[in-house]
Amino acid sequence: MFSSIDHAMMLRAIKLAKNGQFTTTPNPNVGCVIARDDEIVGEGYHYRAGEPHAEVFALRAAGDNAKGATAYVTLEPCSHYGRTPPCAEALVKAGVKRVVCAMVDPNPKVAGRGIAMLKQAGIEVQTGLLEQDAEALNPGFIKVMKSGLPYVQLKLAASLDGRTALANGESKWITGPAARADVQRYRAKAGAILSTSATVLADDPSLNVRWQELGDEVQQGYPETELRQPVRVVIDSKNRVTPQHRLVSLPGKTILVRKQADTLAWPQDVEQLVMPEGEGIDLHTLMAELTKHNINHIWVEAGAGLAGGLLQAGLVDELILYQAPKLMGSDSRGLMDLNGLVSMTQVPELSISDVRMVGGDIRITSRIQNHIQAELLNADKE
Amino acid sequence: MFSSIDHAMMLRAIKLAKNGQFTTTPNPNVGCVIARDDEIVGEGYHYRAGEPHAEVFALRAAGDNAKGATAYVTLEPCSHYGRTPPCAEALVKAGVKRVVCAMVDPNPKVAGRGIAMLKQAGIEVQTGLLEQDAEALNPGFIKVMKSGLPYVQLKLAASLDGRTALANGESKWITGPAARADVQRYRAKAGAILSTSATVLADDPSLNVRWQELGDEVQQGYPETELRQPVRVVIDSKNRVTPQHRLVSLPGKTILVRKQADTLAWPQDVEQLVMPEGEGIDLHTLMAELTKHNINHIWVEAGAGLAGGLLQAGLVDELILYQAPKLMGSDSRGLMDLNGLVSMTQVPELSISDVRMVGGDIRITSRIQNHIQAELLNADKE
Repeated sequence: MFSSIDHAMMLRAIKLAKNGQFTTTPNPNVGCVIARDDEIVGEGYHYRAGEPHAEVFALRAAGDNAKGATAYVTLEPCSHYGRTPPCAEALVKAGVKRVVCAMVDPNPKVAGRGIAMLKQAGIEVQTGLLEQDAEALNPGFIKVMKSGLPYVQLKLAASLDGRTALANGESKWITGPAARADVQRYRAKAGAILSTSATVLADDPSLNVRWQELGDEVQQGYPETELRQPVRVVIDSKNRVTPQHRLVSLPGKTILVRKQADTLAWPQDVEQLVMPEGEGIDLHTLMAELTKHNINHIWVEAGAGLAGGLLQAGLVDELILYQAPKLMGSDSRGLMDLNGLVSMTQVPELSISDVRMVGGDIRITSRIQNHIQAELLNADKE
Repeated sequence: MFSSIDHAMMLRAIKLAKNGQFTTTPNPNVGCVIARDDEIVGEGYHYRAGEPHAEVFALRAAGDNAKGATAYVTLEPCSHYGRTPPCAEALVKAGVKRVVCAMVDPNPKVAGRGIAMLKQAGIEVQTGLLEQDAEALNPGFIKVMKSGLPYVQLKLAASLDGRTALANGESKWITGPAARADVQRYRAKAGAILSTSATVLADDPSLNVRWQELGDEVQQGYPETELRQPVRVVIDSKNRVTPQHRLVSLPGKTILVRKQADTLAWPQDVEQLVMPEGEGIDLHTLMAELTKHNINHIWVEAGAGLAGGLLQAGLVDELILYQAPKLMGSDSRGLMDLNGLVSMTQVPELSISDVRMVGGDIRITSRIQNHIQAELLNADKE
């Protein structure tokens, strides 16, 4: 159904899409190539919300050459009139003969509409070429569209025996500088970094992206002037975070998740998000709420409490575990507060997607395959 | 100093040496190639204690062609009159012109004597070619010669969060069949498998090598008729193991490490090793004792107690950790009983030598770089 030229063109479109990986959120990464047979006549990608879509840049570059050409797009062209006219309409107007989409729109409410608009104009449309690669570009965008919940990456760092700190709390530094730089790159792709008041009170962390630490390869394609800061989201049910904490004053937005707001003098970029009445902070409700703040991809850096709480609630999609070549012993602190499993059939199972060395540490990335099969006591999330 | 021909020949000799990896213990794996320029005229390897050394086989194959040739040996040829005349003498008699050794004899008492014998006969001798690769052939042989203690590989299996069983003890199966077959191959290379009465009482394990589980690749070079069983060593200070336990009656030798012998009717292959008076079993004394039983390479499969005890005593050389893609929670059992570390500077550090997938599990092999920097309470070893 697809030729080797089709494959090559779509691979190129996917590569182009990645140029927006640090900047498009909450919009998806999309790439587009316009080709006449094996000759590329225009290409483009979406770079930032509010700026033109990939197809627009590609059509501009192609000009009259778009007539009779094939457009390769990593995502079904949009059909709605928003800040820009629909891309499907633009493709029709430009006179392309054929459109190949890697995947249809993940939003069930609009899926297929862009394709229908193209077909109605007599354009040949095909979908599903390199679909999985295209899906991997936008885990947050897709998850929200399909489930109403954000894509959650839980970052953990431990010794080889699964411990995060000695019994007395000492932990600096478990992992080495290469692992910490790796964390910077994950942060830079996320819509938000989620943490807790316990972490803020213990370490006074910045929870930001530091361009100098992103590494040469990223820096080359992502100039410091373009730096986007993910939203810092801190669960703070007892209003323990104060304007004196470091992260509050750093560039970028901070959301404090609270049971009730206080009236301290906060910088303008700080928002107190007051959660509904009830005992504690319900993580499911919080996640749904964050999608309304245009956050669809969350990177979690917190302690064992939030890690356990998110896992229990079935809210974790991916686990990123850094393991330092150390042994910290059995009275040291564990990776996650998760108690009461009584059978191996209840145990969450994962599938390993990647294992590699990052400096002297090991990085294991895995997807949660099945969530906890038991009703457990609620963990303390902070 | 060494030519590319030299490198190729020594690589071949190292490859030959590995043919004995399941059978030579406690003798070292040794390979030998005899070559005239780039032409191999004879090769051999040591296969089993009591049978001829690598050089003997290689010289036999070379016949008159050994005259004026170069001999490549992975270990300094022996100089002593034992069950066979010294290989150094055989090389002299055969008239080789040059001998290249990857490493000198690790026994400080005889190191260099074989080389001296060759030099005295006017043979040109060079050492140190691919030395590290040659050393890796015989970790147990080298460790005993240098320190009087065996080489200890500690095998552990855990979930990603470093847990070996749920709080109620349930643990079958954490790792998958590929990891269990991998364990069989490690066992097959060891001189002994070390465990404890606690493990025997809990699981009634076989602690043997099952040829059918070694996998095609191993089986092809290691016929079932040649199968060697490592010695089973069980720490049993309270005489809890009985003749009814499974491992006692299996082919191969079993050593029960005890404070005093009992008078039950044991099969002939079972030895009760009575340790010196004193509280508990001193692991350092035990290890030294096992070398007198011709055991220089120990594979440990036991629980958190022995793992912690060996680590505390600084007796572990290598850690082989299988990690299953599961999360078992914070009330589950830890990898090792090791308590009381109060500073990150006391923590044992390792260097990762290999990380890979074994079926659906991860296998991490690492060397202990520095042992525990603290006096801790003794762990319960059983």
